Amino acid sequence: MKCEIICVGTELLVGDTLNTNVQYLSRELSNQGLSVGYHTTVGDNPKRLEEVVKIAFNRSDLIITTGGLGPTQDDLTKEVIAELFNKELVQDEKVKEELLQFFANREFPFTPNNLKQIFVPEHAEVLPNPCGTAPGILLREQGRVIIMLPGPPREMKCVFEEDVLPLIRKKNRQLVLSRYYNLSDIGESAVEDRLLDLIDTQTNPTIATYAKMGEVLVRITANGENEKELNTLLDQYEDIMLERFKDNIFTCSKQSLAETVAKLLIEKNITIATAESCTGGLIASQLTEESGISKVFGTGIVSYSNETKINLLHVKAETLEKFGAVSEETAREMCENLQKISNADLAVSVTGIAGPEGGTAEKPVGLVYIGLCYNGITQITTCHFNGERKIIQQKTANKVFHLIGKTIVDKAK
Amino acid sequence: MKCEIICVGTELLVGDTLNTNVQYLSRELSNQGLSVGYHTTVGDNPKRLEEVVKIAFNRSDLIITTGGLGPTQDDLTKEVIAELFNKELVQDEKVKEELLQFFANREFPFTPNNLKQIFVPEHAEVLPNPCGTAPGILLREQGRVIIMLPGPPREMKCVFEEDVLPLIRKKNRQLVLSRYYNLSDIGESAVEDRLLDLIDTQTNPTIATYAKMGEVLVRITANGENEKELNTLLDQYEDIMLERFKDNIFTCSKQSLAETVAKLLIEKNITIATAESCTGGLIASQLTEESGISKVFGTGIVSYSNETKINLLHVKAETLEKFGAVSEETAREMCENLQKISNADLAVSVTGIAGPEGGTAEKPVGLVYIGLCYNGITQITTCHFNGERKIIQQKTANKVFHLIGKTIVDKAK
Repeated sequence: MKCEIICVGTELLVGDTLNTNVQYLSRELSNQGLSVGYHTTVGDNPKRLEEVVKIAFNRSDLIITTGGLGPTQDDLTKEVIAELFNKELVQDEKVKEELLQFFANREFPFTPNNLKQIFVPEHAEVLPNPCGTAPGILLREQGRVIIMLPGPPREMKCVFEEDVLPLIRKKNRQLVLSRYYNLSDIGESAVEDRLLDLIDTQTNPTIATYAKMGEVLVRITANGENEKELNTLLDQYEDIMLERFKDNIFTCSKQSLAETVAKLLIEKNITIATAESCTGGLIASQLTEESGISKVFGTGIVSYSNETKINLLHVKAETLEKFGAVSEETAREMCENLQKISNADLAVSVTGIAGPEGGTAEKPVGLVYIGLCYNGITQITTCHFNGERKIIQQKTANKVFHLIGKTIVDKAK
Repeated sequence: MKCEIICVGTELLVGDTLNTNVQYLSRELSNQGLSVGYHTTVGDNPKRLEEVVKIAFNRSDLIITTGGLGPTQDDLTKEVIAELFNKELVQDEKVKEELLQFFANREFPFTPNNLKQIFVPEHAEVLPNPCGTAPGILLREQGRVIIMLPGPPREMKCVFEEDVLPLIRKKNRQLVLSRYYNLSDIGESAVEDRLLDLIDTQTNPTIATYAKMGEVLVRITANGENEKELNTLLDQYEDIMLERFKDNIFTCSKQSLAETVAKLLIEKNITIATAESCTGGLIASQLTEESGISKVFGTGIVSYSNETKINLLHVKAETLEKFGAVSEETAREMCENLQKISNADLAVSVTGIAGPEGGTAEKPVGLVYIGLCYNGITQITTCHFNGERKIIQQKTANKVFHLIGKTIVDKAK
């Protein structure tokens, strides 16, 4: 089945927005064994939009559009496509109900232009949008399918995963199974290097690596018609992965390190406390993105100043005086005292220099000490990260999650 | 001058590569006052490439392609375009010399397929590539210009900046000026509603709104030939914006709320401390993304458990008992006590239900109390947010940044 993607939005044409939607959709469609022939981006301009939809309609079986479904004047996608195929826009009562419901207890007032979103081309299928106000729309025309998705990435993914993917899977006899491996404490090129023999000769399954800050996601995708055969194939590759990356494999899923660690802590009922200096609360905030974390996370301290290290974490003034705030000794006192204060099973501390200012020859930007106190044993890890401030903070957080994961998983063995 | 961009590369169509080239080129062209009408991406497929170039040639004056200029078999851009316009590919001695020079200076071995890169369509201009082996190519045809750039972002930017930008600047007298307004505490549809009269009649300047979580960015763009006139025009619109959104305009820039507040606090030297429950450190971590924040931010407490609220923030057990952890009274004690503990000029506290669990009929998910203590005055704000956990946390943080901004800006008046 020939597919193509049309993205609608002037913000893309002027370069204000990076088009991540088109990559997401291309990858997802490819994963389903569908071939994407073209990407087209056009502004909020009815004439041009109509023109590109016509071109697409003449060369593809499935056309997916993103953007232009919202409440504002320049949202024109469904209007243009409805007119192109001589469809009336009709009120959809269910959409109206959901929209009013959405605004019922919302922090923003309902404005009339929102009503624009309850009109749908006649005979079209509505694809509910659990993440926003503009639903997706599916139109069947002359044996072709046009799917209109909202533009905000979160809503687009939401509608695609909930409504579009199942439809594609139903139509598609070809099975595509993917397994994901989230590796930590290793760079993408090193991962690729260890998999080069497999990547060079890959046909089925295919291997793709995606680098995120301080973590690398490996996707192994097999396709065929027999699920059992696919799983056998993927099992063989899983053995290879586990053998080649035994120190790095964090989770056999897409889950981020933070999410994985949070789930592990909850599952094992290990309580945790955090004392952060250079990460400024990033570790606590990423842990607390996980629902149910309150069961194991009670205390986080952001001890940015020496006063706070002394007053809240009881770090000795002499220690700060003698070794400095960024030192092994300070990291040690921070986590050991934090454990006493919080009474948590596991206490982590971070002190470092995120930069860009504050670095010295002897203590450069990127130097970070991580303290981890668990079962009465304190382990201090010295790290040298590079990158800009935000990168160093995230790499530090990921290293902490890596260390926590290794610690509690090993201890559990 | 009508422009469009064609990106060539199968890696884009399967979603392996995020297309950053197209955003870079779009922004650069827009900054030069050129209007980009379309983006098209096509794979390494001669028939399809020829087809999209034909379409572009019939609707645009300037066509910029990226990719497909390299040494390998699937690099076909110049071959396809040369054939489309009946141009011979001829050896360019200068390119050959530079290519051999390039390899002489590198440890990479020279492989014969590299010679492919010394062929250029007859009568075309070569755009030297100081960053790689594949030069750019400029072709003038029937009053239109086709510029072929290499695909690797670094090389593409290199050739664009060195060779293309000067050409555009020489040809082009049009100026484009944009101003940005970051609004908070208001939804996108409400923003548009208040600007509808201007949006409906917009020609120059143009107005665009972009929604982010809990903030809305408005861009006003004017173009013309006289900078002074453009600024006068933008000043008039700025007055309108300031009048219609006096409670919402946060910063006249693209800066996020967190960044703006952090800079304000540093600039005004107002010290701040945070006590977070449902946001779990998000507010502290977003403030500490700003370099130099240590000057004003010393203490953050993530008081997720009642014990921590009692032990570290000295919230009265009776208060938690009587009113609950999520209550105005708890929020008040949290920030008032935090101010004493931290000695900060401004103390903020957050307690709420981020969900998805933990909501009740009387205290539903999304209920958040924000305490703000400044100059001895405590102000408590009750919010009802919706969305999933992460969204509620970010909306809460943005509301806090909004309240801080309003407080310290008003106080400064």
